[in-house]
Parts: sequence; structure tokens; C-alpha cells
Amino acid sequence: MILGVLGSDKLVTTTNAILTEIFTGIRPIDKIIILSEEKTKRDYTKLKEIVKVIGINSEIEEIELGKGLKSWREKLKNVDIDVADITPGRKYMAYSIIAYSKAKEVRYVYIKEESKGYHIFGYIPFNEMEVVNMRTGEKINFDPPQTIKGLPNDNELSTTATDALINIYSLLGKVTIENYYREIQEFEISDPKDENEELCLLRSGFLRYKEEDEIKNEAQKGSFFIADTNTYIEIGPRLKFLAYSKIGYRLLASRATYNELQNKTSSTQKDEKLYRFYMGMESYRSSHTPPISEDRRFGDTNLLEESKRLKSELPDKLVLITADVMLANSARSKGVSTILLRNVNKGKGDIGVYLNCVKYFTQNSIMVEGKKVAEIPKVREYEEKIRVKTIKEELNYPFLLSITENFLKS
Amino acid sequence: MILGVLGSDKLVTTTNAILTEIFTGIRPIDKIIILSEEKTKRDYTKLKEIVKVIGINSEIEEIELGKGLKSWREKLKNVDIDVADITPGRKYMAYSIIAYSKAKEVRYVYIKEESKGYHIFGYIPFNEMEVVNMRTGEKINFDPPQTIKGLPNDNELSTTATDALINIYSLLGKVTIENYYREIQEFEISDPKDENEELCLLRSGFLRYKEEDEIKNEAQKGSFFIADTNTYIEIGPRLKFLAYSKIGYRLLASRATYNELQNKTSSTQKDEKLYRFYMGMESYRSSHTPPISEDRRFGDTNLLEESKRLKSELPDKLVLITADVMLANSARSKGVSTILLRNVNKGKGDIGVYLNCVKYFTQNSIMVEGKKVAEIPKVREYEEKIRVKTIKEELNYPFLLSITENFLKS
Repeated sequence: MILGVLGSDKLVTTTNAILTEIFTGIRPIDKIIILSEEKTKRDYTKLKEIVKVIGINSEIEEIELGKGLKSWREKLKNVDIDVADITPGRKYMAYSIIAYSKAKEVRYVYIKEESKGYHIFGYIPFNEMEVVNMRTGEKINFDPPQTIKGLPNDNELSTTATDALINIYSLLGKVTIENYYREIQEFEISDPKDENEELCLLRSGFLRYKEEDEIKNEAQKGSFFIADTNTYIEIGPRLKFLAYSKIGYRLLASRATYNELQNKTSSTQKDEKLYRFYMGMESYRSSHTPPISEDRRFGDTNLLEESKRLKSELPDKLVLITADVMLANSARSKGVSTILLRNVNKGKGDIGVYLNCVKYFTQNSIMVEGKKVAEIPKVREYEEKIRVKTIKEELNYPFLLSITENFLKS
Repeated sequence: MILGVLGSDKLVTTTNAILTEIFTGIRPIDKIIILSEEKTKRDYTKLKEIVKVIGINSEIEEIELGKGLKSWREKLKNVDIDVADITPGRKYMAYSIIAYSKAKEVRYVYIKEESKGYHIFGYIPFNEMEVVNMRTGEKINFDPPQTIKGLPNDNELSTTATDALINIYSLLGKVTIENYYREIQEFEISDPKDENEELCLLRSGFLRYKEEDEIKNEAQKGSFFIADTNTYIEIGPRLKFLAYSKIGYRLLASRATYNELQNKTSSTQKDEKLYRFYMGMESYRSSHTPPISEDRRFGDTNLLEESKRLKSELPDKLVLITADVMLANSARSKGVSTILLRNVNKGKGDIGVYLNCVKYFTQNSIMVEGKKVAEIPKVREYEEKIRVKTIKEELNYPFLLSITENFLKS
């Protein structure tokens, strides 16, 4: 069987199209043809190794069809394809395939939120996409392939790829996660068992501060923000997105906050509390270039002084974000606008971010229909990737995602 | 005649599709139908006023066709369209129009560089796009409409819209620009007449430092940058793009540079030299949030001290960018890596940025086939928009672009 897909300047969309089609159960595939306007410098041969993981021994060929409808119409006559996927690429390329290729079946992956399409395969929950036969309008179901045997069973994934992993396992049945804290069934959690889990639920968004909406609203109005240490620790990865507006990025790099995080993470004591400061620093560094100064002071008084100085120099309003009620009171009495984080609500969580956090406090088992398929061991070394051990050899999707992730970064 | 276009979550792509079709000479149009998955909150009625400027008295109607191929196939039967443009929107929407609508003609605007499509109509030179009949593959030529009479003839445009204006005039014949410095014919300029024009040629990219490539290369390697006042003044709007890499934005906000710009722009003397510092500050502010500190020092020594401090605190290499050979020598002897801007080459210039700069030093006439169609008066007030006076009433494209620009911002 020959599978044809459209080439794109975004490696990820072509890769996702191929994997999505294989996950509908197309096999065997003898050849995968990538149809492009002009040959890319991409090394598509690596795709051969990726599809091999899920049992497809296929050649990979890129064919150059030139630019424009006329060129495609002409050259497609000489290309043999059985099934074509037209999800990536330009509209006229897609239309040429439907109208002029010999493909018996032309498919298109419809994604509700288009912007999510630029993440790794699996990142979009499979119930938020539809593989459609373009000629009949019929929906095509998923039929996930197993992995071959003998693959490495200890892999590292980003939080995004961990989300994808859970989604892929969900194609096989009900996925649950078991750890020291709970058995996660419905992916809705709102009752933290201790302060470590509370931290993880907050960072991953299963719990959210009601006041996060206020941050968004202020950002839309053009306000600037400065945030204290706890804000970086607890809101974490979401913080920088909350502070974006049409005008730009409105979160300022506080020196006092940086100094405090610097100070707390300098300890080499064995103390579980340290992880919260590592996480805070990770969120700070991913939001800012560290501010440079010989000033090493930190603490509430310094943060307030810094806020007052900022306030006097900025063209727009400055808002201090803090979870500390005493700091908020003091700031307000000094005339600094403040958003106090105090009301916690249930929210839509990111399971990858949750697992990336709880891995320091507990081992996690990933179960499909009650059977353990993979394990995330408890680790002490602070790192941004998540180590996943495959337990069920024929479902080694962690390896599939790990090599795909490396390919996309290449 | 009924023109159908696809709706999109990006207002600009639907607007551009409508204007592009009108600029191929389709008229009269009784109705413009926007076909969407679901009705947007956009106020499309304003499009009525925009197309009226170019002589089209048309109703605007948005029709909701639901989501998915089946829904479109079903509902399109009841929609009357004569000509359809499928440039915006999703692939299955485009395919449904071709396969199931009653449209006699289906068109698609092919743009070589897709990412440019998100700017105002006209921003892409018309020789870099093709309007194609999707059923026959034939190319459709442009036939630009005139504007109606009695429109405001004094308008303000962004630099992007000014680029668009020149492109639109180019559809009517050879465009030249006449000012105190020269008659611009080929849009290739390499011999500045005085230091003011040199500044404008540098900022607009008609002249470029050869060393700009070095900045790009260093950014790809992950280096950080700090730049002196002249760099912001001369490289201007390009600087922030040069310093972007996959890892993020690598240009740091120098306090010494900010203080110097602050100091120079504090003068209220009548002095043409001041404009270069206003421009430097504009580029600084569009690249950074001003750094906050009580430190008011500036000058070479302070910039060097700041660089050394930054160097000691950053995880990656720091590179100082300067056009001053003495500063470069001093920096290098102190162990600070330096890119010295000294070799000037001819480059592809942005005419909008050029005009936005020379407007402080000379009046500019825009000529089509030797006849003056518009004028950019010399101004003293520093502002980011360009004032354009329409001379030829029936070619009042400045007004068309001005109301389109306001619509897109709404």
C-alpha cells in the first residue's frame, strides 16, 4: 500500500499526518510518499525509523511537484498513491490530490483548535479530531498499532509528550494514574492530600486561582505586572500566558523576587521544600532574562520598594501579584495596585505538568483498563524531562514519542 | 453579482480576499457573502464602507454553515454564489465550495510567502501573488478600481500600509518618489546625500551592515546581546528580529544605553539631530521594557561595566554590538566579545520605513508614470504614522488603506 502525504515547511504537520493515518490502522505500508512544491533539506529518512517502531517497514520518498495548480495537475498523473492525507500543505495542493491524483481514498484530519496542530502527535485528544474521507464525508475510526519488541524501555519525555502519551493510551481504554496521593480516574482533582500535591495541582491547573482572570483582564487593559516568589511557584507555567496582551508581554522581571529565588535555591540541604523553589526558578527563567544588578536584597520590603520605583517610571498601571495577604495589605496602603491570589477553584488541568511535578514526591503508575502499562519513577534529580518506564512491551509509546520528539527538534 | 468568501478567525485574511477579488476587476457586486463555520462576533458591516470607497455598493451577509464536510455539502446547496474566493478558511471548506457550491468560478490567491498574508491588503507586492481559477488553473489578471469622489484627502498610514500604498500604485504604472534627496526609480539606493538620508537608508534596510549576518549567526548559537545607542538608531526596526533565535529573544535592555537615549531626548532645542535620538528611543522601546533603576549614568565606560557584569551572570555568551570602533577596541581588551558595525552594503529596503524617516527632512511626492498622485509633507512633530495627502482624487488609496487599517484594528 502506498500512503501519500503533503509536505509542509513545518516538519511537525507532515509527521503528524503520517502517524495519524497509521493510527487509523492502515497497514502494511510499502511506501510513504511526501509530495512537496520543492525538495526540502529535511532528512525525512529518519521517519523510516519512527514508523518502524509501530510495525511499518516502509520506504520514505519525497517527490517534487513544483509550484502551482497546473504543475501539480500535470505531474500527479505519474505518481502512484493508494491513500492520500491532505492535512498539511497548501489548499491548491490538497485540491490537486482530490481532483487529479489516482488515490482511491483522500483523507483529511479535522482539528477543532487549529493552533494545537503544531505540537507532537497525540497532544490533541483524539476525541477533538476527526479523520474524514474527503470524497464521502465519512468519519474514519482509530485502530492504534502495537509497537515492535526489543525497544528501549526507559525513556525521557517533555511534559507535552507526556500529555500525548496519556492521550494515545486512552485510545486503548480507560486510563488511570495511581500514585501515593490517589487513583486519578476522571482527571478532575480538587482535594490536595498535602502541600506538595497542592503545589502540583496548582502548577498544572487542576486548581486555579479565581484571581487569574483578573490578571488576564488587567493585561488586556495594558497594565504591567510584577510578581512575588509564590506566584512563580504556584501559578508556574501559566503565568507568562496570563500576562500577554495584544500590546505585548507585560510581566516585568523583579529583582527582589529573583534574589529571593536565587537565595533559596542556593541551599544544598536535603529538603523536599527545595523543589518548590527550583520550580519557581524554572518558571522565572522561562518568563524572563534574569535582571542584572549588584543589589542582592530581597524580601517584602524590597519588593515593595521596587514596585514603587517601577510605578513611577512606567507609562501604564503597575499591578503587584502576590499570594501573601500581609504583603498585599502593605502594598495597597502604599498605593500599589495589587491582585491577591486567595480563592482556589477547580480547573482544567494539564496531566503532563502534574506528573512532572509529583514525580519528586511519589512514584506514578499509568494503567489502561486497570493494567499497568508504564511507570514514572520517583526521582530526586531536578530536571525538566519526565522519565517513563514502559512496562507493557507491545505498548512502548514512550519510545515512539521520544524518538519523534528528537526528530522534530532536529 | 454575488461574491462568496470564506470566513476565518483572522479578520485580515477575509478582508484581503474580498479586496483582492475586487482588484481583479469584478464589478458590480450586489452582495458579498461570508461563509463561516459559526457566526463571528466581528462587525462585518464595516466592510460595506470599505468597498464603497472603490465603487462597490454591496450588501454584506455572513452565513453560518456549521462544522464539517457533511454540513457544508448539505447547506451549500441553498447558497447562491457567482464567484467564490477560497483563500481564507479551512481546507474542507475550500473543497466543499469547489465540489458542492453553485459558484460558476472558484478562485484562490496563491502567495509565495504565506506568512506575509497576515498584513494589510497590498502589503505583498502583486507580482508575488497569483489569483488562480481553481477549476482551470488559469491565472486572473489585476484591474484596479478607482476610488469614488469626495473622500477625505489627508490621511495617516502606518509604515506597513505605506508599503501597501506603493504596491497598489504600482498596479497602475511605474511608481517613482521624488524628494529633496533624489528621484527614486528602481527602489535601490546606495549613495546617501547627507547624514540624515544615510540614517534613513540604514533604518529602512536599503543600506545594511554586513555584520548584521554575524548577529543572526550568534543569535542562532544562543548568545545574548547588548547594544549601544547608535545600534538602536541605525539598525532600528530590524534589530529585534536579528536577535531572535529558536530559544527566544536574546537582546538585553541596557541601562546605560537607555539612560543615554533618555538624556539626549530630554532636549527641547530646535535641532534636526534630535530626530535620530527619537528614532533610537522608538526602536529601544519597541524592543524592551525600559530597565528600572536609580542609576542615571551613561556613556561608554558605564556600558562596558554593565557588559562585564552581565557577562558574569549569564549562562551563555554575551556580545556587545556597536558602531564605535574605540568602544569596540576597549570592550575587546576587557574580554567582552564585540560585533563592530563598519561595512555597509546595499540591501532590500522597506520604502515605508524610508519614507517614515525622511519625512522629517524633506517633502516627498509619489508619482505614477511621472504624474503626482500623492504627497508626504515634511513634518516636525515626531509620530509613528505617516501623513499622506492624496493629489489625484480618483486614486485615493491612502483613504482606502486608512479605513481598512482602522477596521482591522477594531
